Amino acid sequence: MSSIFSKIVQGVIPSVKVAENEFAFAFMDIFPLRKGHVLVVPKMEVDEIYNLPEKDYIELTKFAKQLASAMRKAFNMRIGMSVIGLEIPHAHIHLIPIETANDINFNQEKQKVNTDELQKIADNIKLHIICES
Amino acid sequence: MSSIFSKIVQGVIPSVKVAENEFAFAFMDIFPLRKGHVLVVPKMEVDEIYNLPEKDYIELTKFAKQLASAMRKAFNMRIGMSVIGLEIPHAHIHLIPIETANDINFNQEKQKVNTDELQKIADNIKLHIICES
Repeated sequence: MSSIFSKIVQGVIPSVKVAENEFAFAFMDIFPLRKGHVLVVPKMEVDEIYNLPEKDYIELTKFAKQLASAMRKAFNMRIGMSVIGLEIPHAHIHLIPIETANDINFNQEKQKVNTDELQKIADNIKLHIICES
Repeated sequence: MSSIFSKIVQGVIPSVKVAENEFAFAFMDIFPLRKGHVLVVPKMEVDEIYNLPEKDYIELTKFAKQLASAMRKAFNMRIGMSVIGLEIPHAHIHLIPIETANDINFNQEKQKVNTDELQKIADNIKLHIICES
């Protein structure tokens, strides 16, 4: 059975997509810790990120770097990165604009942001993505 | 002026080293969030990790993957990863054995572990590192 993230990648579950390539897919977290919270998932469905094959892992981390650089410009804020993975058994990277360490504390209450607002944020990030071959 | 992490890499400031290659250096955090908390730093001194040149970034993330896989075996626990970087202007990755999301919450009180204990933990991790060419 596909994970919830695989269903999002396949479009079976709708999402506000930010970017996609052969190896990875990025979309807005619908329960963000902070405005601009993006989830980056490998298309290969593995539970623990460090179990990805080397090629998929490298492509995922390169993709996350591109996205984080775009987010850095879009929000004019440092971008924190976190891999926890205790809830959904499909590896994923959180990219979150941060000003304090608490901004990336997963014990805090999550925000509610409507889809229109998420779409505007995604569009802003997309404006800053520099595509690399 | 060298950062505190560059001084650790150079051996000017002592550390409990876990592993090192041409691009990166890993050592035990002396104020760990949890037992087994490792810091991974690129040898190139940049403030924000996403500003590393592509080659250094990829080598750093590959190195972190090898280490996290070793830590996974050493502690029989999932390994969380976090990049925050608000305190020291030299990019670094935290690798932390986790059982709950709070284990990687940087707002919690840090532990105090003596050097002998850190050395034992580092030796245990080293036993599980599989070197890749």
